[in-house]
Amino acid sequence: MEGSNNNNNNKNKNNESGILIVVEGIDGSGKSTQIHLVDRWLRSKGYDVFFTEWNSSETVREITSKGKKKARLTPMTFSLLHSTDFADRYEKNIYPLLRAGYIVLADRYIYTALARDTVRGCDQSWVRNMYSYARKPDLVFYFRIPVEIAVTRIISGRPKLKHYEAGMDLGLSKDEYESYKIFQGRIVDEYESMVSDENFIVIDGTLDIEKQQNTVRRNVLRTLKLKNQIRGNIARVSQLETNTDE
Amino acid sequence: MEGSNNNNNNKNKNNESGILIVVEGIDGSGKSTQIHLVDRWLRSKGYDVFFTEWNSSETVREITSKGKKKARLTPMTFSLLHSTDFADRYEKNIYPLLRAGYIVLADRYIYTALARDTVRGCDQSWVRNMYSYARKPDLVFYFRIPVEIAVTRIISGRPKLKHYEAGMDLGLSKDEYESYKIFQGRIVDEYESMVSDENFIVIDGTLDIEKQQNTVRRNVLRTLKLKNQIRGNIARVSQLETNTDE
Repeated sequence: MEGSNNNNNNKNKNNESGILIVVEGIDGSGKSTQIHLVDRWLRSKGYDVFFTEWNSSETVREITSKGKKKARLTPMTFSLLHSTDFADRYEKNIYPLLRAGYIVLADRYIYTALARDTVRGCDQSWVRNMYSYARKPDLVFYFRIPVEIAVTRIISGRPKLKHYEAGMDLGLSKDEYESYKIFQGRIVDEYESMVSDENFIVIDGTLDIEKQQNTVRRNVLRTLKLKNQIRGNIARVSQLETNTDE
Repeated sequence: MEGSNNNNNNKNKNNESGILIVVEGIDGSGKSTQIHLVDRWLRSKGYDVFFTEWNSSETVREITSKGKKKARLTPMTFSLLHSTDFADRYEKNIYPLLRAGYIVLADRYIYTALARDTVRGCDQSWVRNMYSYARKPDLVFYFRIPVEIAVTRIISGRPKLKHYEAGMDLGLSKDEYESYKIFQGRIVDEYESMVSDENFIVIDGTLDIEKQQNTVRRNVLRTLKLKNQIRGNIARVSQLETNTDE
């Protein structure tokens, strides 16, 4: 309920409470590995952490997956269903937990919707308005990677791509791997167009996992300090700092 | 797909093709009876008519009804699910059939969402933007009726009200009939605030069914003539005219 009453009005509000850290990037960019490592790291230090994933609301998941299986979704209904999923997670988890001072880690956030739905032909300002209630993250890590590398990572581990995942609804190619590559390339273009305006921290997704993690942790630490966020935990922040490379 | 490419841009466009006629009003206002009579009348005259009802998309119905049963929807997810339902019907039926020259009759349209979601606490401009792709109707009949009369009609025919139908999610009253009355009263307020800006044709829902239907048909006829809409059917329009009272 609170979330809906705050529509359009709570951008940059509530910045005093909680910390919202987001990873974005195409499939195979390595973002999930990195956010999981951050998750473990912060929990091991005793922080209250909540992890949330794109498209995982229990209330909405079933219909989305049914509609996807039957390939019956239009770009708009696809967009609206993901938006419903996000709203459900936002109102029930993300928003209240941020208010309670948690560090919320999000594997994909509104930028995934902005990129994908725009590629699918939805008007970006229409999509943006739908998510206008969502708090701006404290940190957005964008994992930049050449499409070919990301696609090879994904395809090698998966015998078959899903219809929407491959962007088959867009009629880009009759071959689903070819379609997938074109689709991912267009999503990269959308992400790249947001880098500067949305203050993405760009991480080179081709580097070693450890190197990427060090950069990520350095930024997380700086945010923890800058926001002087978790009351009484200044000592804990310095403790984290000494262990960045663990 | 076409619908999504037209986001925000197609208001008042396509006015040359098809005719969109909408009825709005609270439950028990008599609007469904009236639109059904119009439906039969136009079909009997050989018009291509498509009838569509609020919350009836097959793709979305199941999750909406599940979420409702479990009372797990927030105002925003409630709003988004109905918006998904509408988008599905709009893209698959309403939009293409209007383009094909049909007369589309809609039992509830975007005004139902604007009224209900606003009462539930959603920001009206947020809701309005979500439906911004939807064509403005040629005619909106708003059935005005005192809440007490409408509520009596509904309650007398129904032993139990549903959770969201009664507005129980709003915490207006612990008694569901009391809650329902307050909720419907607030929706009436929202409808009334739209009458002038949205060019509602107000129908007195307390009048005889026939009297209401005569007024409705007179307006439908005027629109058919004014728009000179259905090519080559001028003769048919005059034939309709002589039979307004049948």
